[in-house]
Order: sequence, then structure tokens, then C-alpha cells
Amino acid sequence: MQGNAVIGQSGGPTAVINQSLVGVIEGLRGTSGLEQVLGMRHGVRGLTTDQLTRLDTIAQPQLDLIAATPSAALGSTRDKPDAAYCERILAGCKKHNVRWFFYIGGNDSSDTCRIVNDLARSSNYDMHCFHVPKTIDNDLMKNDHTPGYASAARYVAKAFMGDNLDNASIPGIKINVVMGRHAGFLTAAAALGRAHADDGPHIVCLPERTFDMDAFTARVEQCVKQFGRCQIALSEGVQDKDGNAIGATLIKGETDAHGNVQLSGSGALGDQMAEVLKKRLTPAGGKAPRVRADTLGYPQRCYPDASPIDQSEARAAGRFAAELAKKGERDGSIAIVRKSDAPYASDTVRVELTDVAAKTRHMPDDFLDGDFNVSKKFINWLTPLVGNMPKMGRVS
Amino acid sequence: MQGNAVIGQSGGPTAVINQSLVGVIEGLRGTSGLEQVLGMRHGVRGLTTDQLTRLDTIAQPQLDLIAATPSAALGSTRDKPDAAYCERILAGCKKHNVRWFFYIGGNDSSDTCRIVNDLARSSNYDMHCFHVPKTIDNDLMKNDHTPGYASAARYVAKAFMGDNLDNASIPGIKINVVMGRHAGFLTAAAALGRAHADDGPHIVCLPERTFDMDAFTARVEQCVKQFGRCQIALSEGVQDKDGNAIGATLIKGETDAHGNVQLSGSGALGDQMAEVLKKRLTPAGGKAPRVRADTLGYPQRCYPDASPIDQSEARAAGRFAAELAKKGERDGSIAIVRKSDAPYASDTVRVELTDVAAKTRHMPDDFLDGDFNVSKKFINWLTPLVGNMPKMGRVS
Repeated sequence: MQGNAVIGQSGGPTAVINQSLVGVIEGLRGTSGLEQVLGMRHGVRGLTTDQLTRLDTIAQPQLDLIAATPSAALGSTRDKPDAAYCERILAGCKKHNVRWFFYIGGNDSSDTCRIVNDLARSSNYDMHCFHVPKTIDNDLMKNDHTPGYASAARYVAKAFMGDNLDNASIPGIKINVVMGRHAGFLTAAAALGRAHADDGPHIVCLPERTFDMDAFTARVEQCVKQFGRCQIALSEGVQDKDGNAIGATLIKGETDAHGNVQLSGSGALGDQMAEVLKKRLTPAGGKAPRVRADTLGYPQRCYPDASPIDQSEARAAGRFAAELAKKGERDGSIAIVRKSDAPYASDTVRVELTDVAAKTRHMPDDFLDGDFNVSKKFINWLTPLVGNMPKMGRVS
Repeated sequence: MQGNAVIGQSGGPTAVINQSLVGVIEGLRGTSGLEQVLGMRHGVRGLTTDQLTRLDTIAQPQLDLIAATPSAALGSTRDKPDAAYCERILAGCKKHNVRWFFYIGGNDSSDTCRIVNDLARSSNYDMHCFHVPKTIDNDLMKNDHTPGYASAARYVAKAFMGDNLDNASIPGIKINVVMGRHAGFLTAAAALGRAHADDGPHIVCLPERTFDMDAFTARVEQCVKQFGRCQIALSEGVQDKDGNAIGATLIKGETDAHGNVQLSGSGALGDQMAEVLKKRLTPAGGKAPRVRADTLGYPQRCYPDASPIDQSEARAAGRFAAELAKKGERDGSIAIVRKSDAPYASDTVRVELTDVAAKTRHMPDDFLDGDFNVSKKFINWLTPLVGNMPKMGRVS
């Protein structure tokens, strides 16, 4: 086989998605028949509009710098290709004689990769198709955790540690809204930095549990009684018993191409929840409690302070995909599996595209503790992934 | 003189306010006649309610850990004492035989310190009164910069660097709201990480310039035309030509004890500004542009990643205040002055309480460049303060 390779990045960026990009470039070296390695600008859109750029000519020091840079260096896209779009993607591949196709992204991207692969096979076009995992949500099947998650978790945990002390210093009710529309892994990371029994977050609300406003309010009230304050980790994806997103119920905002209410890039959910708590917790004829809300926002996925393990695993995932292709594998997705907890060790394995495509992984039940907390098991699972964390001192 | 010392922390916490606390404790060692060093819980409120804690018995390793911990270890307060409250503070001092009074805070706290000092003098109560500077806003007179500012600036600059790449990867209009009700120093720090001509923030809106919605909209439109995207650093304190806060005009929120609309702990300003831009920039019969808003929130002041220089200067400011008292100075505030730019060197000096009390410093005009940018001079001034910053790599 003789031809070119393309690599694309898709969906919400992460702090380590460029590690995977560079991993693929490095892994492809020495591939028999490979002529050029091309990058798609803004994902598959770049392939359909001839927006391609040469990647195999970049010198190693620059590659290392790119790898350590957050966000998608090739540009990303929110496009969710249907069958017709995927036909145009395959046409782009044929036009540029692409024989190796790598797509770095989440579950939607793995589905794009799967469809393109199927189309290539059914048209007898010889092309290797690989999906390289990436998502701060950690919601890909078959993975112990996904590249991008540990760095986002590190940011969320550190932000909550600082904010917990801020909340202790000027007591009140503090809501921090965390990304993750379907899975609670990232919100759960808020609990990682707790060192004392009275440290926040005191309440953790995850999409894996039904959000009941009465139970939530009661819990906040109890917490304020107990600690004089309450720090809350609220997933943007919490839902009521009928499966309605609380965000959509509380706010009337912009909806995206999939009909979802815009949750990130807006403080509306946190602000509305703060209003609800103020109203519900104001005693008759009394003063409203101090309630503040922050929406952690895009720094969760692009703050330049990545977890070292996340960086090396993201690089390894990209490299492994390229090496599989080099060895002759036709298609697949890469998953990170855990080999041991202490000392921590992981490995990359090949899984079927159909195992991950368009599927969503949720938090296992034993990672949760009741309706408003995570388990010790979850903390133990997360701890080795995020790198060294700050130690906090108290005046006792 | 024989008696005790008290130390308090006041106002919004910072990442290094505990450095100053520990600096005072260390500086007081060996003070003739000093019996105990006490900490006020939640600022002067603790002095009026006998909520005091022993500080001179804490071992040095624990002191070092506390110093490196963000937020106010003693607790803080938003109380803004009037004359009667200050009388109660002085009564608390007399009750606990306080002869050394240290208050770590911003311009309101320096005014509390000034009033307490005046009351002590007029009642012939022998007490040393010192204000130790602290504010992420950098708005204290006589200071080249204030402890707390550099760490907040470091966070803001790093958050903007990551977010700029995020915005480049999925292009659109992105507003990031930055703290600073009266002074633009912290918002201006958003520009520190720019390395290329097309790097954001493309627009920087500061309280030192009149905010004109038409001019702003036109600038955003021009930026989108030029770069296909626009990243905006918006100070929460921007005002229109009549001095009305834009935040108050756009939102109807909670007001605090001083009648100010609540800006921090809410995403309302950013969200409302996003709505305004969407409306104004939607072509007739066309589609609204992609506009997102993040409010950087409390991580600005408590994210655990302080600037090393900020840490050592905050420690030095606390120590210097204690040493002045030890040498017999009756009162004063501490200011950080810059001795040289390259290599960077600073010093701590004594200034009069009346020089800083209840006064606000704004950005000098030569730190600004037109209505929507900062000057090279500002960047040169800020660079040595924040510590090492990440380097970003591009696919060219």
C-alpha cells in the first residue's frame, strides 16, 4: 500500500489532545508505503474542504512543544457527520490518496471513524481507520479512563481545594458547576482534595443519581447547620426523576444542533440554582443566605497544567494506534487499561470501533456513596492519575 | 510595654495572604514585652466576639505549610466597621491587653486600621497599629503592586492562554469576565500570554476606560472579520460615560451592604453581555454568531498555584511590619516598591496609614493602549511578577 496518512482532532479540546496528535505522527515513522502525514484543519471538515497541512516535516523539538500545548493544534469541530457527510469524508480521503485515517476524539468521533471505515470497506477502498480516545468526560466504554480526563480532574480538584478554603474563610453556600453532560466522573473529581472531615465539597450532585430539589435543599440546610457553610459540586448534567435536565428546566437558553440547552460557556445553571436556594432557604421574614455560584467553564479543559500521567498516556495512545496500523491492523479504537494500582501502571490495547462508537460510559455504582457523595473507592481510583497535589495547612 | 499582639485577615482572600500572616508571626519573635501572638477569627469580628486563637505556639513546619496555603487561614470578614464598631474593636484590644495590632487587607482594612489607631491614640492607649497590604485588585496607593495580585494575574494569564487556544480550535466569540470592580490591573493581565499577532485576548475592556456598547460591538465585529474569532477580557467593573456600572445596567441582581450589585459569584454579567452581542451581531434573517461567556470566578483569588515572587513578597511585607513595630514604630502601612526591572528586585517600605486608607489606585494611563488594549509597558511591568509561564507550540 502506498499513500498518505491523515490525522484529525474533534469535539471539545483537552489539555493533552496534542500529545495524541504527536504520538500518531511519531508512531507512523517507518511505515512502509507512507508518503505524507497530513493534518485535517478542524477535524473532518478540513478533509472535505481540502484544508490539510503537512505534519511529518515538523522537527521534533517543535513536535514536543506542540504536544505540551493544550487544546487542538489542528483546530477542532462540533460537526456530527451523518452518512452523506461521511461519504464526502471518504471522497476527501480518496482525493488525497489517504490510506491511514486517525481521528482523535470522544464517542461521536469514534462513530464518525466507524462509519468512514464501513464506507471504505464497502467501496473496497483500502484504508486503515483508527480512533484515538480523548474526552474530559471520561465516558468512553472499555477505557479505565480516557486521555484528557486526568488533567481536567486535576484542575477541578485544585479549583475545589482553593475554593473550599475561600468558602471557609467567608462562610456561605457556594455552588460550583462542573462539566459533564452525561457522566459524573469530572464532577466527582471535586472531592479529591478533601483532607479533613469538614472540607468541601460537602455535596456532590452527579448525573448518575436522580436530582431531587427537595432532598437537595434539605441536605444543603443540614450542611449549613453542621458546618456553617456548604460547598457544592454540581454536574451540569444533573436530571430529575423523569430524565429532564435540571439545566433545561431552570434556564431557557440556546439549544445546539442536537437540541440540547447550552450549558457550557454560560453561568446560567449555577445562577438559577443559587436563586432557587436563596428563595427556599430564606426564613419567613428573614434574610436570604449568602449563595454564590461559579461555573468552572473552559479552564477545565484547557488550563495549562496537565497531569504528567495524562500527558504520557495520551502520547502513548496516539503512538499505539499508529503502530497497530503499521503492523497491518485494519481498524480499531485504543483503550487505556489499568495494570496495577500501586505502583500505578497502565497499558494501551486495541478494541473494536463498535465497542466505543456512540456509546456512553457512566460512573460505576461503587464509585458513588449515597445520593450526594463519592466513595473511597473512586478516590483511590482517581488519585494516581492526577499528579502531585498541593498540601494545605490549617490554623487549628 | 508588656502585652499581646493580634493579627487579622480581612476582605477577599488571596493565594498568599497566609504568607503575610506567617511573616508577621515570624517578625514578632524576640519583641521585647510581647507575651502572646493571637489570631482574630474572621477579622475584627473575632476581636469583638473573643474569637481569638494562639499563633506563637505553632511549630515552624506547620507555619510554612500554612503560609503556602491559599485563602485566609484565620477566616476573613466583609464587615466594614464604622466608628462605633471601631470602638468595640479597641475595647477588644484593651480587654485582651493587645499592644500590637496587625491587619492584613485592602483599602477598607487599612481604613479600619487607621480609625482604630486614631481611637487608641485619642484614648491614650499605647498600641502599635500596622496595616499589611493584600489585594488581587492591585489598587492600593504607594505600592508598585500588592501581595496577592501577582498570583491572581498568573492565574488569569494562564487561563486566557489556554482559553485562547480553545477559542482558536472552535472559533467563535468568547467573553471572559475578570474580577476588579474599580481597577483594571487584573483584567489587563489577560494579555500577558500573547505570543503571536493573532493571539487573544483581542479586546481588553477596563474600568479605566469608558465602556461604549456601540464601539465595543464594532470592535468585536471587526475582530471576527480579521481573525474569524474574538476573545474578550471584560472587567467586571466596566462603566459607561455617566459612571454607571455596565453590570448593574445589564443585570438586576443582589446588592451588597454598600449598594453594589453582586458581580462575583455569578455569571450574570458575562451571560448578559453574550446575549447583547448575539442580538447585535445577528445579520437580518441570519444566524446568531457563537458567543460564549465564562466568569473566571473565585479560582482567580484562591487557585493553588501562587507566583513564587508574590509568596516571598507577601511574607516579607508581614515580617517587615512586625520588625517596624519591634523597632518602636507606632503605626503605618507597608508598601512594596520596585528597585529594578532586570534583574527584578523589590523592597518593602513604611508608608503612612492615611496614604492608603480608603483610597483607590487605578492603572496609569501609559499601561493602556487605546480603548481596548494594554501597552507594552504594562506587559514589561507585569512579566517579572508572575513566575515562569508555559510556552505554547503551533502547527504553522
